[in-house]
Amino acid sequence: MDDLQIAKSASLIPPADVAAAMGLDPALLEPYGTDVAKVRLDAVAAMADRPKAKYVIVSAITPTPLGEGKTTTTVGLGQALNRTGRKATIAIRQPSMGPTFGIKGGAAGGGYSQVVPMEKLNLHLTGDFHAVTSAHNMLSAVLDNHLYQGNAAQLAPHSITWRRVLDINERALRNVVTGLGGRMDGIPRESGFDISSASEVMAILALATSLTDLRERLGRIVVGYTGEGKPVTAEDIQGAGAMAVLLKDALMPNLLQTLENTPALVHAGPFGNIAHGNSSVVADQIGIRTGEYLVTEAGFGADMGAERFFNIKCRTSGLAPDAAVVVATVRALKAHSDKYTIVAGKPLPEELLTENPDDVRAGAANLRKQVENMRRHGVSPVVAINAFPTDFDSEHRAIAEIAEELGARSAVCTHFADGGAGATDLADAVAEAAAEPSEFRLLYPDEMPLREKIETVAREIYGADGVDYTGPAAKQLDSYEANGFGTLPVCIAKTHLSISSDPTLKGAPTGWRLPVREVRASVGAGFVYPICGDMRTMPGLGANPAAHRIDIDENGETVGLF
Amino acid sequence: MDDLQIAKSASLIPPADVAAAMGLDPALLEPYGTDVAKVRLDAVAAMADRPKAKYVIVSAITPTPLGEGKTTTTVGLGQALNRTGRKATIAIRQPSMGPTFGIKGGAAGGGYSQVVPMEKLNLHLTGDFHAVTSAHNMLSAVLDNHLYQGNAAQLAPHSITWRRVLDINERALRNVVTGLGGRMDGIPRESGFDISSASEVMAILALATSLTDLRERLGRIVVGYTGEGKPVTAEDIQGAGAMAVLLKDALMPNLLQTLENTPALVHAGPFGNIAHGNSSVVADQIGIRTGEYLVTEAGFGADMGAERFFNIKCRTSGLAPDAAVVVATVRALKAHSDKYTIVAGKPLPEELLTENPDDVRAGAANLRKQVENMRRHGVSPVVAINAFPTDFDSEHRAIAEIAEELGARSAVCTHFADGGAGATDLADAVAEAAAEPSEFRLLYPDEMPLREKIETVAREIYGADGVDYTGPAAKQLDSYEANGFGTLPVCIAKTHLSISSDPTLKGAPTGWRLPVREVRASVGAGFVYPICGDMRTMPGLGANPAAHRIDIDENGETVGLF
Repeated sequence: MDDLQIAKSASLIPPADVAAAMGLDPALLEPYGTDVAKVRLDAVAAMADRPKAKYVIVSAITPTPLGEGKTTTTVGLGQALNRTGRKATIAIRQPSMGPTFGIKGGAAGGGYSQVVPMEKLNLHLTGDFHAVTSAHNMLSAVLDNHLYQGNAAQLAPHSITWRRVLDINERALRNVVTGLGGRMDGIPRESGFDISSASEVMAILALATSLTDLRERLGRIVVGYTGEGKPVTAEDIQGAGAMAVLLKDALMPNLLQTLENTPALVHAGPFGNIAHGNSSVVADQIGIRTGEYLVTEAGFGADMGAERFFNIKCRTSGLAPDAAVVVATVRALKAHSDKYTIVAGKPLPEELLTENPDDVRAGAANLRKQVENMRRHGVSPVVAINAFPTDFDSEHRAIAEIAEELGARSAVCTHFADGGAGATDLADAVAEAAAEPSEFRLLYPDEMPLREKIETVAREIYGADGVDYTGPAAKQLDSYEANGFGTLPVCIAKTHLSISSDPTLKGAPTGWRLPVREVRASVGAGFVYPICGDMRTMPGLGANPAAHRIDIDENGETVGLF
Repeated sequence: MDDLQIAKSASLIPPADVAAAMGLDPALLEPYGTDVAKVRLDAVAAMADRPKAKYVIVSAITPTPLGEGKTTTTVGLGQALNRTGRKATIAIRQPSMGPTFGIKGGAAGGGYSQVVPMEKLNLHLTGDFHAVTSAHNMLSAVLDNHLYQGNAAQLAPHSITWRRVLDINERALRNVVTGLGGRMDGIPRESGFDISSASEVMAILALATSLTDLRERLGRIVVGYTGEGKPVTAEDIQGAGAMAVLLKDALMPNLLQTLENTPALVHAGPFGNIAHGNSSVVADQIGIRTGEYLVTEAGFGADMGAERFFNIKCRTSGLAPDAAVVVATVRALKAHSDKYTIVAGKPLPEELLTENPDDVRAGAANLRKQVENMRRHGVSPVVAINAFPTDFDSEHRAIAEIAEELGARSAVCTHFADGGAGATDLADAVAEAAAEPSEFRLLYPDEMPLREKIETVAREIYGADGVDYTGPAAKQLDSYEANGFGTLPVCIAKTHLSISSDPTLKGAPTGWRLPVREVRASVGAGFVYPICGDMRTMPGLGANPAAHRIDIDENGETVGLF
């Protein structure tokens, strides 16, 4: 059975029953169809005196281009915790529709560890991405109208940083010229579209701690600069209020469930490179009061997703994690030995599939560094060995031994094939790790200057020798410090395919320097993001995209979405 | 109290109770929040053996730029029918978000004749407009990707008619150049964005008779032509299946209610000039089985909205109307005397507000022609005299006398101020008119050639002496006939501010010819649309748009939306 078939054969329970199992008053739900509900933000206050769950972050070693199963592990672990008598809720990002119709065809875990209803999750769900798209483009329209009506804020046209967004893979919109036509058709200028998950509005939705905080963050969005370099905000051009109204419902987290009826809060989907790549703060504010464990996921490898989870998301929410799962696979460790090349969309090299625990050990450096990085933040690490049918026991043992050398717990898990039953050892290991006293600490304080923050992450987390800035990057940093953005955390946009900034370097490379090409600021979301290398913020469709295959059959059922 | 305050003080009943009052099994609902539900399409079959309601269309005389209260009258009439012991449901279009943040700030009727929840209705509602936007832009992405991947369909780039859409007022997107940047960023070409309500996908959503029919119509969309003039369809470039999946939920009508709990089906919102401007066929298929009366609305004046309701929508659905309400106001009749100029956004001329039944009579020609046009389709007309506080009884009497001369029923109504209680006379008049045997007939048969269809509408409905075609328009008509589109009905895109094609001509002008500048085809939706004059398909924001005022207050409540 493919993922869509497994998902369709699931036995879902009503959202009210899911809520009741979480200790969440079903009156706090707003239904969206029969299988999905939004949770009203009143839930935060209503549940404030309930005990706090253990807070578990799931991240991974530096992945191959295929991904190593973080969402699947998050789902499997949640199911396993519940199966072993521990009340758990999971919190994950909402997938973007663009890739669903591009290469992927859907993302909600996989096999017997999925969030359902899969079809809704991968399409409109409750419209949050559409609300982000609308709010973002509303500000774009207000901005272009501001220019057209006389530009009272004296925006320097070439300094405008605010673009437009669509939740679609559309390379032809990356670079456009707008405002063409006659005198009544706007002011011509260069601009472009990003995918909606790359919108600062998405990052704001994910980081806002309340509706009031959302409104304030929207107001702080910097859309461009005056000729003198003074930032012009969404508030300055009167665009933030309308955005807040468009986002009001979207700020309520979505309640779904896994195939085994584990509660799943699905909310927001910010990019994992130019943004922090974590699900929402409000979902965690609610989820943390709903049982004994809240398991959430951070995008890409731990050097990216988990570092931002700690230093951006937890800094904002004030919540402290108790355990950090690092997902590892045999294929990824073998790839980190630098003896194999894995390309997305192509079959794995045959020699990678032969029994070879030595190559697993040869790729240990990356896992070692990622586990150390968890410790650096004071959080107990657990290595989840995500098993594939092509693995050998000797290879799993090799990973377990590496973990043991690091003093970290580990467990082999088969939740893809077996659901929660395949991750009970992992659940036990996570429960033990989370029971240790949390010594969570941020990597750097707010008041550290931006350059030092960047260098701290580069040296301590990535293992770089230092940081090199281009002239423009250095100027941007100076101007951000001068404009008062220096107290923001940093979100370093680099490749996710290496712990370094060079996607071809495997393992845990040393003797390299992080090259910062430019630096941008998401002032509303609340971070500065240095860009290292080429960052795509709008994907394209391939020669044979999922969009060509996705259809309805003669019974009106969706096909091709898996 | 403003409209938003009235709407917020409404006593809503649960959607399940609204459904039960309609004889609609609440199990056929999918809830969207607490006050809105979608109606599953299974309802059509489930209710097939219930008696058919009388089918009432609400249209108007040629309006002033302020509008004459069609939606308000539709709501008021529905409420009044229920108040007088007749079971009625109303069916209206969903408002577009673009104008909500532009000049209007919201549209759902007004005063004590509104559809609620007003805030949801004017914002995302259940996401149908977003689904249309997504589906439309998905086809755009598939199309640009088709060009990029080698253009197997041999589309001539300059013949591409498929653009993009956003539900926003955004003049700077009317004309754009896309595909700029490097070799990896698509094929550069001129294009542009329309507002989502102008999308052919919106017209398809409104005209589809089932999910299967929707899928087929999407496949028939013509995106452009080969160098030899052969049409290239959405099916040809493998884009229609993904669109259907994106639109599956959107095809289910939305169930809301009026301030007096009259059931309101709100579904689809196609443009009233380049499209047919009527709410959906599926909503009417369901609504026609839910009581004794189904009251629906047609956009703009009767020469536009009602003519298309008859010859496009009823042709598609097979449903036959039993009565046609023509909304008339004192101010509009006075304006048709051609002695006053009314400008949107400015106060009415003072002299128009003085008692002057002679000027009302001087403007009778337009009302007379619109009423005759209803008769031409075999439908009994009723003149609804929509009263304003500034009117005089003598002026209302003047309108009633004109109606009487035409042998048409009429009633003064005050539903804006008084709700359903203000429209009980209208309800009685409509009930009498609908009780007469329906002699509904289409204005022209499918097999009539396109030119004859255009001339039939121009002469018989608009009162033109004939039609003039530009060279390109004549060529387009020839090519559409050659391509097999000649059996489609026509949707003439002209100004709504005159029954002629010249917005400055009031009353019922004669001695003029309809100038057809170009002709386009919405083959998927199923009509050909000749364009007479300048048609804006993407509005802009004004100097002081509602977007600047709409905000949340300190309690998180929406303000500025009225």
